[in-house]
Amino acid sequence: MTEMSKTGSQAANDHAAMISALVHDSRAAQLVLAQSSYEVRIAALTQAAKLIRGATDEILARNALDVTRAGENGIAAAFIDRLTLTDDRIEAMAAGLEDITGLGDPIGRELARWTRPNGLDIARISTPLGVIGVIYESRPNVTVDAAGLCLIAGNAAILRGGSDSRETSAFLASLMADGLTRAGLPPHAVQMVPTDDRAAVGAMLAASGEIDVIIPRGGKSLVERVQTEARVPVFAHLEGICHLFVDAAADPDKAVEIAVNAKMRRTGICGAAETILIDEAVAPALLPAIAHALQQAGCAIRGDDTSCGLVSGATPAVEADWSTEYLDSIISIRVVAGIDAAIDHIATYGSSHTDCIITEDATRAEQFLQQVDSAIVMVNASTQFADGGEFGMGAEIGIATGRMHARGPVGAHQLTSFKYVVRGNGQTRP
Amino acid sequence: MTEMSKTGSQAANDHAAMISALVHDSRAAQLVLAQSSYEVRIAALTQAAKLIRGATDEILARNALDVTRAGENGIAAAFIDRLTLTDDRIEAMAAGLEDITGLGDPIGRELARWTRPNGLDIARISTPLGVIGVIYESRPNVTVDAAGLCLIAGNAAILRGGSDSRETSAFLASLMADGLTRAGLPPHAVQMVPTDDRAAVGAMLAASGEIDVIIPRGGKSLVERVQTEARVPVFAHLEGICHLFVDAAADPDKAVEIAVNAKMRRTGICGAAETILIDEAVAPALLPAIAHALQQAGCAIRGDDTSCGLVSGATPAVEADWSTEYLDSIISIRVVAGIDAAIDHIATYGSSHTDCIITEDATRAEQFLQQVDSAIVMVNASTQFADGGEFGMGAEIGIATGRMHARGPVGAHQLTSFKYVVRGNGQTRP
Repeated sequence: MTEMSKTGSQAANDHAAMISALVHDSRAAQLVLAQSSYEVRIAALTQAAKLIRGATDEILARNALDVTRAGENGIAAAFIDRLTLTDDRIEAMAAGLEDITGLGDPIGRELARWTRPNGLDIARISTPLGVIGVIYESRPNVTVDAAGLCLIAGNAAILRGGSDSRETSAFLASLMADGLTRAGLPPHAVQMVPTDDRAAVGAMLAASGEIDVIIPRGGKSLVERVQTEARVPVFAHLEGICHLFVDAAADPDKAVEIAVNAKMRRTGICGAAETILIDEAVAPALLPAIAHALQQAGCAIRGDDTSCGLVSGATPAVEADWSTEYLDSIISIRVVAGIDAAIDHIATYGSSHTDCIITEDATRAEQFLQQVDSAIVMVNASTQFADGGEFGMGAEIGIATGRMHARGPVGAHQLTSFKYVVRGNGQTRP
Repeated sequence: MTEMSKTGSQAANDHAAMISALVHDSRAAQLVLAQSSYEVRIAALTQAAKLIRGATDEILARNALDVTRAGENGIAAAFIDRLTLTDDRIEAMAAGLEDITGLGDPIGRELARWTRPNGLDIARISTPLGVIGVIYESRPNVTVDAAGLCLIAGNAAILRGGSDSRETSAFLASLMADGLTRAGLPPHAVQMVPTDDRAAVGAMLAASGEIDVIIPRGGKSLVERVQTEARVPVFAHLEGICHLFVDAAADPDKAVEIAVNAKMRRTGICGAAETILIDEAVAPALLPAIAHALQQAGCAIRGDDTSCGLVSGATPAVEADWSTEYLDSIISIRVVAGIDAAIDHIATYGSSHTDCIITEDATRAEQFLQQVDSAIVMVNASTQFADGGEFGMGAEIGIATGRMHARGPVGAHQLTSFKYVVRGNGQTRP
């Protein structure tokens, strides 16, 4: 029977069986990783980095096949840029793996320890999460970054990259597996889903009780599909609709500098600011300077009526602007009645990613930090600091915007669970 | 149009709309709770405890209606016992609420804090989880226990109790809501699902993006349904198939005392031991005494061939015994080739709840603690200590057996998330 003659439910069963088979091998490998020493896991990543550097020419050749095919398929230029590897980008992947090895062992850490009056000694110890599914777009570097973070924390990774990067990602995954083998660890701790069929993603999302957690890394439509369909736990990574609120007590210079940096340093990252809210009390005095600096830096401005009256060259914002992640040199600006209105706006339109108040007023700063329910809340700093490396937490797989398990930067130390270890000397319960 | 004439999908839509309406009110109430002071949340629980004590007669009267109806419906006696309230049980509910107020504020706690080289001050601060759905069986006390734990941590609770307890649970929930009102908090932070229709549970499980997390509290079939159907994150609470492994270096007296306590102190709790594994090297010497003590305490023994040869009165275990949570005066016993075989058995048949090794050998103790992947692993202590109160963590909603978010005892401090609070003085990212 050929694939085309199968019914939908047969195909779904085939995909479920394929994912189950992958998970079976992942689980066996993960149990070995969970018991392996930190040094051995470090060796696996170090070996993989070495293999990646040594295979630069072959990686480039495979990547050229992907890029050519993507071009033939009429894929957009920005997308092809993210797909395209260079010597520098390959070196960055290898160096990234080596960086992961410098953060201390994420598993076996004593998170807390106490003794009960009856003498029981209780410790909470970090453990691996298990088998982690990573679903991502055609960005080959995610293959290496995600696998490395999973492995160092004793997890197995099942990777499902975008079909446009299939040659590159499959080869990179094989190098990660070879690194494991060289360190004496089971190579199945890193596996790629061996089909481009979108239904395979559905099978991953349905693999409750098999895959322990799924991490979607990609755009809005991918994340929404994952969150809608998943029966497996998901680390939610929504888009970053990050706000700057310029309070009535903002320092003008800080407001200008932070606004330009938060928007324009890199417009394509999830921590880039997308909306400025400004207190009506200071909008006439401060907004023209802020807007001018942004425009000078090449940013287009979409404002509400009041903003448009204060900023020459601004175009009117429509309702959709307040919930748009531009990832581009565009920012929306709204004049609000004060901090409460700003907090309401963020609760309505934000994505619980990163939001910042600019103020010299300590009381309002604390109100904002407490009442804005986002993974990261800031005062007087650029939202572009929303990054695991900038937090001193090391490389990350993304910024989680949900409230379950991991929130904020998700690095190796967040890809863990824990267990309670209880040491007694014969205690029984009365 | 009457309910009976509706199609299944219309009914499903009605239930989804009903849950959405509940969540809408829950969310609004939760946002107020999240900003409330600890003292006000304490007042809400203290007031509710007072209301419960003051309404003892009415609670008993409503409970009698439930018990009578359950009897007419031919419900089993053990089930009716759990449904039936008494003066003492009502007092225990009220006292339980008051106990919850003595554990410190679960939210707003500084979990970690550090300063970056650029001067950014970063803190991880505990926050509420949000809107928590609790699905449970006809045990009215869960209404009060679960609502209390959710509320003290700033969460809203949507409760769905078993239909046999509907009169009692609805009244208790109304008292919890009255306690909130008396403290000046919004009563909708505690709501009962206002229908016994099982399809309403399906609507809760499908309420992704609305209910933040679902906690199933009940037997195997409930938990399995929840884990199979849920598109909302779930705190998994599997059954407790808890093991005692009697190692070759076990102290004989400890082995006997712990075995009897772990099995027989209370057979109906999830931390009760269900299987004893014993090293073949010491089985002839130790097993007869262990088994005899259990039998003297009223416990029936189901053994593998070797055990049956060593224990008079043992009946042969079948394969299903190794994965059965008896919750009764029955225990299964298996002689194993050593610690590795014991760990394999637990990995195969256990439920990742609580498992214990009895040994005086420190190396094997550590091997067991490290390699058994359960929420709680113990050495030389009764598995009946698997309890939030015994851990010094206060009242709990259950013992989570999954690896996501909360694992082990889930009390008020586990019903939280966190956020990163970043304080700067104008930093921009280079």
